[in-house]
Amino acid sequence: MAQNARLHSLGMLFLCILWYPAMTTAQQSNLNLMPLPANSQPGTGSLPVDSSFSVAFTGYTEPRLERASERFLRQLARQTGLPLSLKSVKAAKATLIVETDHAGKEIQEVGEDESYILDVSTASARIRASTPLGAMHGFQTFLQLVDAAPDGFAAPAVTIQDKPRFPWRGLMIDSARHFIPVDVIRRNLDGMEAVKMNVFHWHLSENQGFRAESKKFPKLHEMGSDSFYYTQDEIRDVIAYARDRGIRAVPEFDMPGHSTAWFVGHPELASGKGPYEIERRWGIFDPAMDPTNEKVYKFLDDLIGEMAKLFPDHYFHIGGDEVNGKEWDANPKIQSFMKVHQLKNNEALQAYFSGRVQKLVTKHGKTVVGWDEVLVEGVPKDIVIQSWRGQASLAKAAKQGFRGILSNGYYLDLGWSAARHYAVDPMSGDAANLSAEERQRILGGESCMWAEYVSPENVDSRIWPRNAAIAERLWSPQEVQDPASMYVRLDVVSARLEWLGLTHKTALRQMLRRLAGSASPSEFAALRTLTDVLEPVKDYTRERTAPAVPTSATPLNRVVDAIPLESDSGRRFGELVDQFLASSCRDPAIESRLRAQLAAWRGNDAILQPLGQRSFLVKEVAVNSQDLSALGAAGLAALDTIAKGQPASDSWKTQQLAVVEQAKKPKAQLLMIPAPAVQKLIEAAVSGGVCFSPKP
Amino acid sequence: MAQNARLHSLGMLFLCILWYPAMTTAQQSNLNLMPLPANSQPGTGSLPVDSSFSVAFTGYTEPRLERASERFLRQLARQTGLPLSLKSVKAAKATLIVETDHAGKEIQEVGEDESYILDVSTASARIRASTPLGAMHGFQTFLQLVDAAPDGFAAPAVTIQDKPRFPWRGLMIDSARHFIPVDVIRRNLDGMEAVKMNVFHWHLSENQGFRAESKKFPKLHEMGSDSFYYTQDEIRDVIAYARDRGIRAVPEFDMPGHSTAWFVGHPELASGKGPYEIERRWGIFDPAMDPTNEKVYKFLDDLIGEMAKLFPDHYFHIGGDEVNGKEWDANPKIQSFMKVHQLKNNEALQAYFSGRVQKLVTKHGKTVVGWDEVLVEGVPKDIVIQSWRGQASLAKAAKQGFRGILSNGYYLDLGWSAARHYAVDPMSGDAANLSAEERQRILGGESCMWAEYVSPENVDSRIWPRNAAIAERLWSPQEVQDPASMYVRLDVVSARLEWLGLTHKTALRQMLRRLAGSASPSEFAALRTLTDVLEPVKDYTRERTAPAVPTSATPLNRVVDAIPLESDSGRRFGELVDQFLASSCRDPAIESRLRAQLAAWRGNDAILQPLGQRSFLVKEVAVNSQDLSALGAAGLAALDTIAKGQPASDSWKTQQLAVVEQAKKPKAQLLMIPAPAVQKLIEAAVSGGVCFSPKP
Repeated sequence: MAQNARLHSLGMLFLCILWYPAMTTAQQSNLNLMPLPANSQPGTGSLPVDSSFSVAFTGYTEPRLERASERFLRQLARQTGLPLSLKSVKAAKATLIVETDHAGKEIQEVGEDESYILDVSTASARIRASTPLGAMHGFQTFLQLVDAAPDGFAAPAVTIQDKPRFPWRGLMIDSARHFIPVDVIRRNLDGMEAVKMNVFHWHLSENQGFRAESKKFPKLHEMGSDSFYYTQDEIRDVIAYARDRGIRAVPEFDMPGHSTAWFVGHPELASGKGPYEIERRWGIFDPAMDPTNEKVYKFLDDLIGEMAKLFPDHYFHIGGDEVNGKEWDANPKIQSFMKVHQLKNNEALQAYFSGRVQKLVTKHGKTVVGWDEVLVEGVPKDIVIQSWRGQASLAKAAKQGFRGILSNGYYLDLGWSAARHYAVDPMSGDAANLSAEERQRILGGESCMWAEYVSPENVDSRIWPRNAAIAERLWSPQEVQDPASMYVRLDVVSARLEWLGLTHKTALRQMLRRLAGSASPSEFAALRTLTDVLEPVKDYTRERTAPAVPTSATPLNRVVDAIPLESDSGRRFGELVDQFLASSCRDPAIESRLRAQLAAWRGNDAILQPLGQRSFLVKEVAVNSQDLSALGAAGLAALDTIAKGQPASDSWKTQQLAVVEQAKKPKAQLLMIPAPAVQKLIEAAVSGGVCFSPKP
Repeated sequence: MAQNARLHSLGMLFLCILWYPAMTTAQQSNLNLMPLPANSQPGTGSLPVDSSFSVAFTGYTEPRLERASERFLRQLARQTGLPLSLKSVKAAKATLIVETDHAGKEIQEVGEDESYILDVSTASARIRASTPLGAMHGFQTFLQLVDAAPDGFAAPAVTIQDKPRFPWRGLMIDSARHFIPVDVIRRNLDGMEAVKMNVFHWHLSENQGFRAESKKFPKLHEMGSDSFYYTQDEIRDVIAYARDRGIRAVPEFDMPGHSTAWFVGHPELASGKGPYEIERRWGIFDPAMDPTNEKVYKFLDDLIGEMAKLFPDHYFHIGGDEVNGKEWDANPKIQSFMKVHQLKNNEALQAYFSGRVQKLVTKHGKTVVGWDEVLVEGVPKDIVIQSWRGQASLAKAAKQGFRGILSNGYYLDLGWSAARHYAVDPMSGDAANLSAEERQRILGGESCMWAEYVSPENVDSRIWPRNAAIAERLWSPQEVQDPASMYVRLDVVSARLEWLGLTHKTALRQMLRRLAGSASPSEFAALRTLTDVLEPVKDYTRERTAPAVPTSATPLNRVVDAIPLESDSGRRFGELVDQFLASSCRDPAIESRLRAQLAAWRGNDAILQPLGQRSFLVKEVAVNSQDLSALGAAGLAALDTIAKGQPASDSWKTQQLAVVEQAKKPKAQLLMIPAPAVQKLIEAAVSGGVCFSPKP
């Protein structure tokens, strides 16, 4: 009864909140929260946070929640530098009261209630939630509210009523192509908790490695991992660590393709003759399991049984992507099997395989997740499609009654900007036209960290901070769309993520130090100036333009490996040029900032050159450095021309645009980000146009 | 016999080396080694270091050496980004061959052979050493040689014959005033290994805490540590970790003063009535052990016995410093004991105590180390004096037959520059005039990290990189003295220390982020510009100028806690001004660099001000920010005046110097480092002098 009464009052509160005028997105943005909450109302004043800060629990509690509170307090102590006691206190004394109604599911479920209400007044704060999941999200929101204020640390008074837009908000880490040690996984789980992601999709097997210890089939990890695998104890630890943070751990064992590493120890599973070796290159390869071999299903029955026990989650990912079919085509036994069973092509053969495996997964009490390819005629409706193909594929699946999650558009390894990922919505495109019932089947999305060019050293910088923008897309209301607001908040959240031990900023500097060797301070500064405006080439260009065939033994120590996938400096310069051109070309403040930047670039190559002669890793970007200095000169020339007030000549234009075109060409697998903005300046200098007639 | 033959050939090699022309200090400096070796001869070319790099052992080996090799290879992989196999190989295949003659002592001894010879040719490298200690030093030297070169990573060809100047090269960490967790201790041991320090002096008890678990007297750590103590297992781990790195671990239990924390659980040991509480303030306090109480000696006998077993080192530090005697004066029983035993003052009473404790330490098989105060009439000659008083005290002790180590001049908490520490030599002052025999008694020195204003977060930045300069002082030949060379190499070693996980650079930025809260990128850059030229006040000024009585609960999150103790930017600006004034005032390149810097400072306050209004921690340095901008303006005015070629007026001078005087006043416990250099510019503008008559 007491519980019911409390639930009732929570319900009332939700209703009341709906009557308040909600904050606009712009107002919410002032709170520097990421993801932005579903709903918030500003209060007056703020709650001081000092050394006396404490937490109390009322209502339901459990050890997980107490650990979350300790973690919260430790994090608060870290981000403020205040010494805080980690023990919870009595409600009357507490600064923050956490009121949880009841336990969550023993195994976290898709769509479980994650909502919470956070009230911050000038005197105290309160988190109310149905289950620990919501309470933990409330902790994270509170952490983001606390900041250095005029009279000490404080959280602004506010009422936040929050819940996720999608129930499945995941990050996939490929720890098979390059092994990612447990401590790196852990700190990324901390990062996921901070931005309210709730699914860790663990890609555990590949052509390049089988990374999970199997007690039933030890040859899998012993012969298929170069000794880089997770023990079952480590896996259990990671799962518990994730659960403590409201995160489900979904394992993926990719089959029937992407499985060369399995065959090193178990060639009898394969469709080819073998023997097999661990694959060292990247790409799609021929080896595939033999769908016609009953021993394969016996083996998978045992293995899935073992792994289904190890991973408590209700879902089990069987991969299913990118089988090229060459081993099947070449195997007469398989060909005759296909004829006998009237399987007219390899797609049908794979459907047969998927159907068999799906039954095994079901037998072991789990629901199948698979990439688009597993969706074929006859598979049961309860499987979940993870779409690397896109919203059209997802919408088609939803119409057929399948649930789906979007990953197309969220591939972190392709080097897209945060804004580009942010603009991808699971409900856009074909998915926008679904019926209400069909829309329910779109469960959310997952960002994917494929690991061809990822090492334990740089993986954090490939995931963060951009992953936070995807997390917001999946949590916040669909109308939260403004990339400018997103970038402001992303900058803040990125800095805060460092308190969790994520190395997305520190590793960069350290890797540049390695490149720079014994650079003088000014040389190192010049290297930073250059690398600050470069980005690795996008999509799969790196693969295509590699100077030598890249393998898992290729050192990842070049500039392309060290720099972030998105250049903040480049983006900001572009914004500044747009401001300059949009308002008034003669705005002296903007012009002088542009000039300072361009002059620094122009002079940069002269400083950096000697270092390029000493270090082979800097030498690789010597051409990029020349491009940057040429761009700086061209940009200054454009500003000079604009200042004169007379349009430039065609020959001048041709000359300057040649500089831009040269700079735009990728070199050392790197893009020169400010090139298009400098081009705009040149074109403005030529055209006159807006630039010579300032707006009122 | 085989061993003898090998020893003989090593001996021959040493002789040969002495015939070669040794490199000058300046030549050696090109190697970027720190500490500089005793002797080195440059070779031609360099040894490539690529993914095939491997290590082989010939001669004596042991598990410690194999672990050292793995650690070396892991470190080499980290600093190059090359994937390396960690397993040692056969000599014929190895890039680096390690030839060790015999085992070191089971418990590392003072003066044990630490020498090694490192030969690097274009084809391979070889380390030769009598014992694993020397081999491990050789590994560290090799790591410092490897750098990005024009065609890949490489180590320059060179022959280095190296051995330490002093046998006792220590770092003391006070983990009693603020508790320093084990992982922080560990990474600092890694840092010590990198710069060849060999004594970790662990200050374990203080008024503010008793940090070692005692199984015999658990009330010591249970009641005297706020639960922040090292378990005996942790202590054993740290000792083993240190031994693995050629580092002795010497414990200090400070007595009879500095011991309030002992008395919380054991008031019966004290000279006052009690009860006692853990001291929260800093300073010298009254509580002291009762030297007249036999139970005290019984207790210490048991405790020293326990700790002597836990710490295998032959030396045992009993502190002995700073007893103010007030509890003794106030205790009639003690006064009457003094009369009966003809102890004419408190010094004599402490001598009596020290003598008794020294016997206990000897009984448990150890040699006493103590601060200057333990040197009183009648103590046995085998004790070691650690001098906080200085070379005179040390020389006096040496003349009396005592061995000593210098710490005066090496207190890391006083905020001295690396150059100032570097200039302190154990053999200077009175010690310079000792006989050869007496000089042998000066064993070396120890830097001291006292922890009043030190937290796990900023302790690395208080120790490093300056400690590396002290390490060089204690290892390298006395004639290695050039601070300019030291600073160039310190910059390199500082960056390399980051590969060990030391946070001396990263923590600073993170702490500034905290101060800055949600600063915009340009505001944060302005905060960096300001804090880059500030230093905390020196010596004990912070204590004296504290706005409120500082305690162990005072948050260490201010600018004064975040910034390094030495400003690189400030030093470099000073050097640039000196260059400008020394050579030619009209050197346009230098002038333009000075102008750019001064202009940036002049404009900095305007950018930073809004942030100061939002964050209380930035507000604290608002005045410093105004000073910097005023200094920038004054410096530019001085350059303008110099450019005009006519001496400035007195009134101008008065006005400008007032700006400098204002900037020189410490504010927010911070010093404005460029002030004296700007003053030089102003004086040059007034005087004419050198500045108007460029040297040829």
